[in-house]
Amino acid sequence: MKAITWEKKDLLGLEDLSKEEIELILSTAESFKEVSTRDIKKVPALRGKTVLNLFYEPSTRTRVSFEVAAKRLSADVINIAVESSSVKKGETLVDTGRNIQALKADIVVVRHGSSGAPAMLAQHLDISVVNAGDGWHEHPTQALLDIFTLKEKIGHIEGLKVAIVGDIAHSRVARSNIWGLTKLGAKVTVCAPALIIPPAMEELGVVVTNNIDEAIEEADAVNVLRMQFERDSETAFPNHLAYFKEFGITEERLKKAKKDIIVMHPGPINRGIEISSEVADGPSSVILEQVTNGIAVRMAVLFLVAQGQEIKK
Amino acid sequence: MKAITWEKKDLLGLEDLSKEEIELILSTAESFKEVSTRDIKKVPALRGKTVLNLFYEPSTRTRVSFEVAAKRLSADVINIAVESSSVKKGETLVDTGRNIQALKADIVVVRHGSSGAPAMLAQHLDISVVNAGDGWHEHPTQALLDIFTLKEKIGHIEGLKVAIVGDIAHSRVARSNIWGLTKLGAKVTVCAPALIIPPAMEELGVVVTNNIDEAIEEADAVNVLRMQFERDSETAFPNHLAYFKEFGITEERLKKAKKDIIVMHPGPINRGIEISSEVADGPSSVILEQVTNGIAVRMAVLFLVAQGQEIKK
Amino acid sequence: MKAITWEKKDLLGLEDLSKEEIELILSTAESFKEVSTRDIKKVPALRGKTVLNLFYEPSTRTRVSFEVAAKRLSADVINIAVESSSVKKGETLVDTGRNIQALKADIVVVRHGSSGAPAMLAQHLDISVVNAGDGWHEHPTQALLDIFTLKEKIGHIEGLKVAIVGDIAHSRVARSNIWGLTKLGAKVTVCAPALIIPPAMEELGVVVTNNIDEAIEEADAVNVLRMQFERDSETAFPNHLAYFKEFGITEERLKKAKKDIIVMHPGPINRGIEISSEVADGPSSVILEQVTNGIAVRMAVLFLVAQGQEIKK
Repeated sequence: MKAITWEKKDLLGLEDLSKEEIELILSTAESFKEVSTRDIKKVPALRGKTVLNLFYEPSTRTRVSFEVAAKRLSADVINIAVESSSVKKGETLVDTGRNIQALKADIVVVRHGSSGAPAMLAQHLDISVVNAGDGWHEHPTQALLDIFTLKEKIGHIEGLKVAIVGDIAHSRVARSNIWGLTKLGAKVTVCAPALIIPPAMEELGVVVTNNIDEAIEEADAVNVLRMQFERDSETAFPNHLAYFKEFGITEERLKKAKKDIIVMHPGPINRGIEISSEVADGPSSVILEQVTNGIAVRMAVLFLVAQGQEIKK
Repeated sequence: MKAITWEKKDLLGLEDLSKEEIELILSTAESFKEVSTRDIKKVPALRGKTVLNLFYEPSTRTRVSFEVAAKRLSADVINIAVESSSVKKGETLVDTGRNIQALKADIVVVRHGSSGAPAMLAQHLDISVVNAGDGWHEHPTQALLDIFTLKEKIGHIEGLKVAIVGDIAHSRVARSNIWGLTKLGAKVTVCAPALIIPPAMEELGVVVTNNIDEAIEEADAVNVLRMQFERDSETAFPNHLAYFKEFGITEERLKKAKKDIIVMHPGPINRGIEISSEVADGPSSVILEQVTNGIAVRMAVLFLVAQGQEIKK
Repeated sequence: MKAITWEKKDLLGLEDLSKEEIELILSTAESFKEVSTRDIKKVPALRGKTVLNLFYEPSTRTRVSFEVAAKRLSADVINIAVESSSVKKGETLVDTGRNIQALKADIVVVRHGSSGAPAMLAQHLDISVVNAGDGWHEHPTQALLDIFTLKEKIGHIEGLKVAIVGDIAHSRVARSNIWGLTKLGAKVTVCAPALIIPPAMEELGVVVTNNIDEAIEEADAVNVLRMQFERDSETAFPNHLAYFKEFGITEERLKKAKKDIIVMHPGPINRGIEISSEVADGPSSVILEQVTNGIAVRMAVLFLVAQGQEIKK
């Protein structure tokens, strides 16, 4: 791998990144992972910097992961939860961003319901913007931690076969994983009920199927997405049990897969809906390691974008 | 007192603790109390540790007290307020706990509506769990700060007569106080309207009465619990005034008690319901000292469980 | 300017301050402003101190500004958002304040819907109270940052002509600006629809008009207040457009004003209601500089009241 320097002030998505940039994040995360195993889990890398979590959608998991990551880098962290009710009468997103910049914050981590919101913010600001999930578009740090976990477990990404199963249509996690994995040379199969597979999915360079056994047959890893029945009435599945029967990842189903297949899930898991408890808690599962790696990956991202911002100046 | 070392990774309740362990917390709190009187109110005891407040019930008082305590120990603090609405569709408590552990948090402080929730969490996790109040079960740090305050005021607990007055049935504070006080050799009388005294209360080693004057007659201290009329329609009291007349702690009532009786209350106080303003603000009251001591006691608990966790490893 | 020392433990409003005290805050803010331009934006001035934000009204902007300011001074910050629903059954404001004092917090920053709430708190507490906006009374740090910005831009306040336009009746920002500006020798004109100008406004030493062109004709600066149509049905304006037409600050309107007029707004701005986008983003606007200066001013206030508290002891 040729030595490159991170030069971007933002992390908006994996579609925008080169293979080398993704690899730089992964190797930086590797060196930060050790920090969380120390007795004093702290490095002064971002001391005196202000990281602001701006969440237009509630997501305790992602917010907490970024908050822990920033604090382990010694940054000051400010949380803003914008309630949807106050968005209407409030200022525009860009005005909010400009105000945050005027506070001399260094990095704004934004979760937003609209695809492209972080990118728009990044265009208007000189400070760093990190996308913590935007609409159905991307959730780059989730994909990066998935890929980091895969690489840590298997040693490489090139040539891996990864199945992504579940609500592909509405999943920014799926999209970011597809961009990241294919750039690093993995082969991706996506699998979901026919009705919720978006058209033209193949154009992203993935194989599409609605047969779960086929999807995981030769897979080195399966990334199981959360089914959100509460918002998807169009999934054509009358109930959880029907989905579990046809797409749920169970021990029985895994018997037909590779013996050392890795099972991932971005969490929170729905036990007995998209994954059985036996699998979630079993030896194939790396679900909790993903959470641990999320801290390292987010430390790396915060560190790199702060560095990129300096170069831009 | 023989020198003992704290060896538990958790603080779940006072029922589980030996007399020596309770005394160790009290003496540790004593040494931490001085920190909050310094110009720079901070010691590096938990620097680089992550303390996570996981509150399934809103309790600003307890959350803030733990947050201040953790920050004075130089820990990083993360607050999670779980709304009851999101519990239903969310992950299980144990899965949430495992995720927190995967973040490499060191201590999770949990407030939960169900008795035993912190204990269940503690069983499944290697990190420390501190009970910040669970259902009607225990609220150990509240009782510890009550006992700390008593000891500070009177010099000893052994042989003290303590009356606990109010909503005994629904009070985790009462239960934790009973366990702690009786272990340290105090004599406890509980007093409440007959209809809300739970059956078999005597089995905890306390005297039960519904006559308030009898309860406080020989008491060295009275711990006045908050009446929560909003959730207890079964208290058989038609209104606040009726309760105040029969059970409220007033100057007149205290005239029949020991001259130097100590009046405690876990707060927030209902002036004119369970206690008169004159008493709450009068010379017998140690209510605000309890709040101050809460910081010292929680610093001690956080410090000791972190130490216990190290020993367990 | 004669050298004075800050001797107040609180900042409750600009009505209470002398010219010299206001100037001391401004010059202290000047020296703190540089901190936010450093690579490590932090000074140890309040290390080991606890600043508690107690907000009875939601105000993300003001809370975040105080939080950033306190953290740049190395203080520990605790946020308490009191929901209006819980105020009724909760403890009194003074009891809450006494509890905060008992936690050994050093400074409580309070936002409250009732005029005089911070002053009442300050009377009952030995710790510092900073008014972050109370009812229709005062919002002193907002006015201080407005005045700081003016002084930074123009070099002096004495003799300046400042127009304050908008919802004067319900604006604590207007009142604090009037007190501060007149004390420093500026001439203030207030301008609003006739029906919402409170009676006896002239007694504050300002010129009152409902003609916007007249108001800004000779002004060195115009401070545009937010119109809050959602709560003011009595504004007598059928809709936003009608207000914008008659009172909105537009480029066309500014052509009749001084060429180098400064346009201020406390934010969040309503584009196309009280101000046009062209003006808000144009060369006359110092709106974002106000936000930046808010950090410096609040750092100064927190620093000075902590010092004043020491002197009081």
